[in-house]
Amino acid sequence: MLEVYHAEPVANSMKVLICLKEKKLDFVSHYVNLLAFEQHEPEFVAINPNGQVPVIVHNGFAINESTIINEYLDDVFPEIPLRPEDPVWRAKMRIWSKFVDDYFCPALSMIGWHLLVRKVAQSLNKDELDEVLSKIPLKAQREKWATVAGDSFTAEQLGESRRKLGVSIEKMEAILGESEWLAGPAYSLADLNSFSMVAGVERLHPEFLNEDKAPLALNWLKRMQERSAVQEAMAMPNKVPETLRTIGG
Amino acid sequence: MLEVYHAEPVANSMKVLICLKEKKLDFVSHYVNLLAFEQHEPEFVAINPNGQVPVIVHNGFAINESTIINEYLDDVFPEIPLRPEDPVWRAKMRIWSKFVDDYFCPALSMIGWHLLVRKVAQSLNKDELDEVLSKIPLKAQREKWATVAGDSFTAEQLGESRRKLGVSIEKMEAILGESEWLAGPAYSLADLNSFSMVAGVERLHPEFLNEDKAPLALNWLKRMQERSAVQEAMAMPNKVPETLRTIGG
Repeated sequence: MLEVYHAEPVANSMKVLICLKEKKLDFVSHYVNLLAFEQHEPEFVAINPNGQVPVIVHNGFAINESTIINEYLDDVFPEIPLRPEDPVWRAKMRIWSKFVDDYFCPALSMIGWHLLVRKVAQSLNKDELDEVLSKIPLKAQREKWATVAGDSFTAEQLGESRRKLGVSIEKMEAILGESEWLAGPAYSLADLNSFSMVAGVERLHPEFLNEDKAPLALNWLKRMQERSAVQEAMAMPNKVPETLRTIGG
Repeated sequence: MLEVYHAEPVANSMKVLICLKEKKLDFVSHYVNLLAFEQHEPEFVAINPNGQVPVIVHNGFAINESTIINEYLDDVFPEIPLRPEDPVWRAKMRIWSKFVDDYFCPALSMIGWHLLVRKVAQSLNKDELDEVLSKIPLKAQREKWATVAGDSFTAEQLGESRRKLGVSIEKMEAILGESEWLAGPAYSLADLNSFSMVAGVERLHPEFLNEDKAPLALNWLKRMQERSAVQEAMAMPNKVPETLRTIGG
């Protein structure tokens, strides 16, 4: 049995949801409501000690880290392959996915936390906040919550993250000048791993992603949006109120 | 033809050197002297635009990022496999390697920069430093050089990195309580990817890695040091003066 613990179809949850849909896999969906802090509850932390989504549980084994989950799914369910056969393209798929994880996603995440999670954190009174913080397993994650509950990130930090979004889209545009997809002539994990981040830039910072500056990246985003797997993933449950939706879908 | 651009056998260069030796691969070695800033020279930046080692060039294609290079080598030269067959162990191999890249190695790296690279940076006069900085492609890397040339990292930052070394060894000890190697019953990339970092902790912070606190991790380190591939990698050229050697071999 394949169980998937995920939030709404954005960010890292979205990476795994698209992969599952591309591979046409049956799975038991467990929606983890991040706004209700379900990811920090003991039942969930027993599954992922980091208290983060997404996680899959397959034949009783739990696996976290979205990029690694997607490679696992491709290892175990190779019928619809999502990694390039050619080892050089496969390495480039991993290099791009690592760049998204280490650089692109954290930059977008900081801006998303500042716009969205801050509203949630600031709606809590001191006791409620202390209660939330006391349950967060990862120190870095506790500090992020404390930051947005307080003065949030500095203008300098946010500016640096915006700059990184620009660099990410420029890099993507350059790659798409060389190949049709982000890791070669065929659609791969490199593409689906980036969809939610690129969609977030289009929504939040169109000054980086428009016909003028990044036509190839924009065309890539349209091709992604037309895929039925992406549409099916976007149709997955989303309990985030409209007023708090800033990123992704 | 397989060409390898690497520095002395420590840190990320060491990961790739051990992998090559385990696989008994012939390769053309190009020693990049980091203390002479060869990694920022145009000839090298043409090979890796990030200006960092290690990089391999195989059949004319350059691949960077040590963890990804090692997966590539295992994809292309599968005769002596270094990834678990079982997909769950394989995922755990990737999760551990990602933890080393994202958490363990940066913590050790900050301490190494503070002890070693700082001496180099502070030996430069202002013009020499400006010249070095002007050639560094990555902003984050330029900032690290500027930091150690100035007041270096704060006591708080260094303390946090030391704390992370302790967490890393504790995590390793827990894993080795469950399996003989870091990703299951067999030696794998998870092990060789961590060797240099663990050896660095033994040398710099034995308070975390000793018979009392982490007997399994210490035993793992001894088993690693006995491997002929590790010994061959450690025997690779090292142009760092003895007085500047603080980490690894």
